Amino acid sequence: MSATDPRLLQICENYTRAVLEKSVDRFLGLYHPTVRVFDTWGTWSCEGEPARRKVVEQWFGSLGEERVAVTFDRIQTTATNDLASLTARVVYAAISPSGAELRSMQNRLTWVLKPDGDAWIIIHEHTSVPLGSDLKGLLARE
Amino acid sequence: MSATDPRLLQICENYTRAVLEKSVDRFLGLYHPTVRVFDTWGTWSCEGEPARRKVVEQWFGSLGEERVAVTFDRIQTTATNDLASLTARVVYAAISPSGAELRSMQNRLTWVLKPDGDAWIIIHEHTSVPLGSDLKGLLARE
Repeated sequence: MSATDPRLLQICENYTRAVLEKSVDRFLGLYHPTVRVFDTWGTWSCEGEPARRKVVEQWFGSLGEERVAVTFDRIQTTATNDLASLTARVVYAAISPSGAELRSMQNRLTWVLKPDGDAWIIIHEHTSVPLGSDLKGLLARE
Repeated sequence: MSATDPRLLQICENYTRAVLEKSVDRFLGLYHPTVRVFDTWGTWSCEGEPARRKVVEQWFGSLGEERVAVTFDRIQTTATNDLASLTARVVYAAISPSGAELRSMQNRLTWVLKPDGDAWIIIHEHTSVPLGSDLKGLLARE
């Protein structure tokens, strides 16, 4: 396990900022055009940017006056010159216009990334929650 | 995206064989001792082989006379000299002693792998199903 590449932590910060700003273009700029996404919600697999764009537009558009504050922790990374991975817990908190936290949930996140100039770009994302014995997702924060 | 490294497909075959034979040691031999596993079921995260061993022993021990036939498809791989990833759909089918398929479910699977001599070894696994709007996992085969 290598020491954490600061450019990988930068991706986490850029993700957090794009979600807080509800910026579809900033968000999609983190992903390779052919990205394969296994998302926590609804669809089995999302292949490529056009399909991903619809999902992200729908997500940000559904938020109304709320914002979403994202935090990453329990981060583990492995980076070589040509490929990297990052795994983490991600907490999504809904924030009211006055700044109060309304509710939150946690996801497990895996990224696979390739070099893109001086930065990394996400070529695969997998987010999920585990299922309990009642087949329901375990969304609550530990 | 590179052409598929045959050693990565070999890992899929070895996984399938270990599950069919319910061989805990053969199964755990595919994973690095410090592997981080985000599993479809129950636990948020499983860190390292001792924790993983308990889960696998419980899984194989719960099967009784049934066996589990695993198939991988929709495989995508990215391999460099020092790191690789593989994503796929995985179907788990319960097989009766007489060879009949009793039921099945599908998972999304992500592996991150490191070189281990002439082979690859799994340093991270993430399996899941997406959640529907009722918060239940979508396990059925498409």
